[in-house]
Amino acid sequence: MNNNTAQAMEAVVRRYIAALNAGDLEAIVALYAEDGTVEDPVGSPVHRGLAAIRAFYAQSLALKLDVTLEGPIRAAANEAAFAFCVRLHWQGRNTAIRPIDVFRFDESGKIQSMRAIFGPNNMSAE
Amino acid sequence: MNNNTAQAMEAVVRRYIAALNAGDLEAIVALYAEDGTVEDPVGSPVHRGLAAIRAFYAQSLALKLDVTLEGPIRAAANEAAFAFCVRLHWQGRNTAIRPIDVFRFDESGKIQSMRAIFGPNNMSAE
Repeated sequence: MNNNTAQAMEAVVRRYIAALNAGDLEAIVALYAEDGTVEDPVGSPVHRGLAAIRAFYAQSLALKLDVTLEGPIRAAANEAAFAFCVRLHWQGRNTAIRPIDVFRFDESGKIQSMRAIFGPNNMSAE
Repeated sequence: MNNNTAQAMEAVVRRYIAALNAGDLEAIVALYAEDGTVEDPVGSPVHRGLAAIRAFYAQSLALKLDVTLEGPIRAAANEAAFAFCVRLHWQGRNTAIRPIDVFRFDESGKIQSMRAIFGPNNMSAE
């Protein structure tokens, strides 16, 4: 059963990006399902459940992030995907990371799984 | 076991886009694993195996497609994701469709699964 409209999924993505830029940990966690999962980047260990997800983002938000969407959010069925750029000051230099994230939503519109696809080729000094 | 380098996965994506633009059905099919799957768009029935994949792309290539990457290819572990735009003349008008595709690769570097994430909001008259 799919109760997620493209508009609703796009709105969650926009809230997610705004919360990353605001450094608002609780706003991010509130977007996830209780048993949600985060695999960021793909191939790394999966963070499962809100406590693990909170700990993961707390670490990410220890750095000030400047996050911008790159192109339109794609949304269909229970999934949304979006390309974006994260700029941060890391190990003494300005760095840009360009992931594509895929969110899968549960029936209530919470993020059931998040997978971030990016590798070393998608990281650069700026 | 992951034998896929980012460079190799990116090269497959570039060959895929070139084959779409060339209307080269066999070049596309050659990128897929024997038991590969295509779900395009996500939420629609999955095409499984080379015969079904060939039939799916034969239908897509009945229209002349103009495909351009939008931004860098993301690749990590066994997966690649990329945003792109497909321009075509459809039902009497110029149309643009903007998917994000996610490829998962098998150990030999063939596409094991392809999932295209886009919805009506990602289709527009041009």
